Amino acid sequence: MKDVAMQIPSYQDMLDAHDRIRPHIRLTPVRVSDYLNELTGAQLFFKCENFQEPGAFKVRGASNAVFGLSEEQAKLGVATHSSGNHASCLSYAAMLRGIPCNVVMPRTAPQAKKDTVRRYVGRITECEPSTSSREETFARVQAETGGDFVHPYNDPRVIAGQGTCSKELIEQTDGLDIVVAPIGGGGMISGTCLTLSTLAPETQVIAAEPETADDAYRSFKAGRIIADDAPKSVADGLLVPLKDLTWHFVSNHVAQIYTASEQEIVEAMKLIWKHLRVVAEPSSAVPLATILKNSAAFRGKRVGIIITGGNVDLDRLPWNN
Amino acid sequence: MKDVAMQIPSYQDMLDAHDRIRPHIRLTPVRVSDYLNELTGAQLFFKCENFQEPGAFKVRGASNAVFGLSEEQAKLGVATHSSGNHASCLSYAAMLRGIPCNVVMPRTAPQAKKDTVRRYVGRITECEPSTSSREETFARVQAETGGDFVHPYNDPRVIAGQGTCSKELIEQTDGLDIVVAPIGGGGMISGTCLTLSTLAPETQVIAAEPETADDAYRSFKAGRIIADDAPKSVADGLLVPLKDLTWHFVSNHVAQIYTASEQEIVEAMKLIWKHLRVVAEPSSAVPLATILKNSAAFRGKRVGIIITGGNVDLDRLPWNN
Repeated sequence: MKDVAMQIPSYQDMLDAHDRIRPHIRLTPVRVSDYLNELTGAQLFFKCENFQEPGAFKVRGASNAVFGLSEEQAKLGVATHSSGNHASCLSYAAMLRGIPCNVVMPRTAPQAKKDTVRRYVGRITECEPSTSSREETFARVQAETGGDFVHPYNDPRVIAGQGTCSKELIEQTDGLDIVVAPIGGGGMISGTCLTLSTLAPETQVIAAEPETADDAYRSFKAGRIIADDAPKSVADGLLVPLKDLTWHFVSNHVAQIYTASEQEIVEAMKLIWKHLRVVAEPSSAVPLATILKNSAAFRGKRVGIIITGGNVDLDRLPWNN
Repeated sequence: MKDVAMQIPSYQDMLDAHDRIRPHIRLTPVRVSDYLNELTGAQLFFKCENFQEPGAFKVRGASNAVFGLSEEQAKLGVATHSSGNHASCLSYAAMLRGIPCNVVMPRTAPQAKKDTVRRYVGRITECEPSTSSREETFARVQAETGGDFVHPYNDPRVIAGQGTCSKELIEQTDGLDIVVAPIGGGGMISGTCLTLSTLAPETQVIAAEPETADDAYRSFKAGRIIADDAPKSVADGLLVPLKDLTWHFVSNHVAQIYTASEQEIVEAMKLIWKHLRVVAEPSSAVPLATILKNSAAFRGKRVGIIITGGNVDLDRLPWNN
């Protein structure tokens, strides 16, 4: 077993990541809506990571890993497994550097996400939609290609990269009482904790999770990682379990984990589309869903929300099913 | 007949408008997409007026009119007729100032737009979906209320207000070869001409119009206003005819008018949602549709595009019909 303590990224790693990736990412805008502020009684600041070129915050961690490789390492490229956005973002970053990218993806991943990976010249190997099949298939692909493994979240380079998002958010908003981000494997939440625990220690970090894939919530309550195999939710970016590095941040820095039902997530997604007029994927709507459900905890507060991604199959919107 | 020469807004009117409305509008961001740049061979800069609180650029002209009223005039409020966004934007501006707003709207206007007017405390009187019925109904409403008539586009205060959008766009992009905006009655296009003819006279202004409501295109070719009664298009914000003030700008400053079919508009709308990840209404997709159709005219150019609005009924998307 690896020495976990050695791998925990530092605040300086996050600052270095920001310098490294700045030429390759967008400084995404922060959106506000008077209507949603009235509805929640809070002041909401939505950080639009769906406006990254590949449509998700994961381009931050992926770019940090890809552009941090030595020339020699870079020749063999990178490899990963992912439910979608990490795959397209790693492919995108690898394409920018001109190196190969192999990705293992569940065959059930949205077609829009597969198309995006292929547009960025990523090579897809499909697996079954379970954690076990994913890991088994990946071991084979990685052995064949020798690409550097960039885990979607349990990688210090990735966490340091994701942490750059809340650094920008704090700078763009002049301070927040709370930041809410969705939690799946915990990469964004870990990066947020990494950054805010130094930059804005008074800002609470709250994680938002689908009720039907609430393993992080149960882990948080139990004080140890509980992993489910193949949970289901409309929030298809949030179906993977916590790992050691992300558990470190979740268990040490997260103030609360709230959950929302499938219907609440879809309703919040529609509110975001209608009133912010941005295309956010279901995973990105979980924070607003939990804020609406637990409004007393947010009333009167300045609340940052990460709109984590916007890769949606427009022909299969969840409110039309 | 009024003296038209007296009513043509000046560049200084536009600058004054910007100072007047700045506290009431958003400085909307400019979005870019590497994918759409590759697809068109141009460098596209999308000005996201759909991110104004009421979801459309028309809040600029409406705010300029509302906040320019004397205290005495303001007591009777404002009144207008509109296919939708001007109505909600005028209601919004009137609500901000705390004065009444009466609007005449076609009964066939999208439910989302009616809901928005009512949310902003605007009082709706419905008419038939024809220019003649609209003008007749409005005369009655205005006589009853005495509100100051703020025409959706043929009003110098409105044109000066709309002109503030391309001022920001030029400042945000460091200069453009072409600006493309949709044309209905011509308010946005006129404001764009007003601003660019002084601020960036080397920048061409191109108007984009639905083929099935191409009265501005035919007017432009004929050298005189041709008005249709009740044309039909998925681009429901573009169904009204040019009037004397907007014709002044169209005939003097517009370089070209391009048209697009209904299918091309819907396809461009999907591209905007998918790759810019913003919710744009069909009218806002007409510029991209015409750029894709006339790509030779845009290749290699720096092209500004006004995303005019984002008020869409999410339960009735045009690609699901």
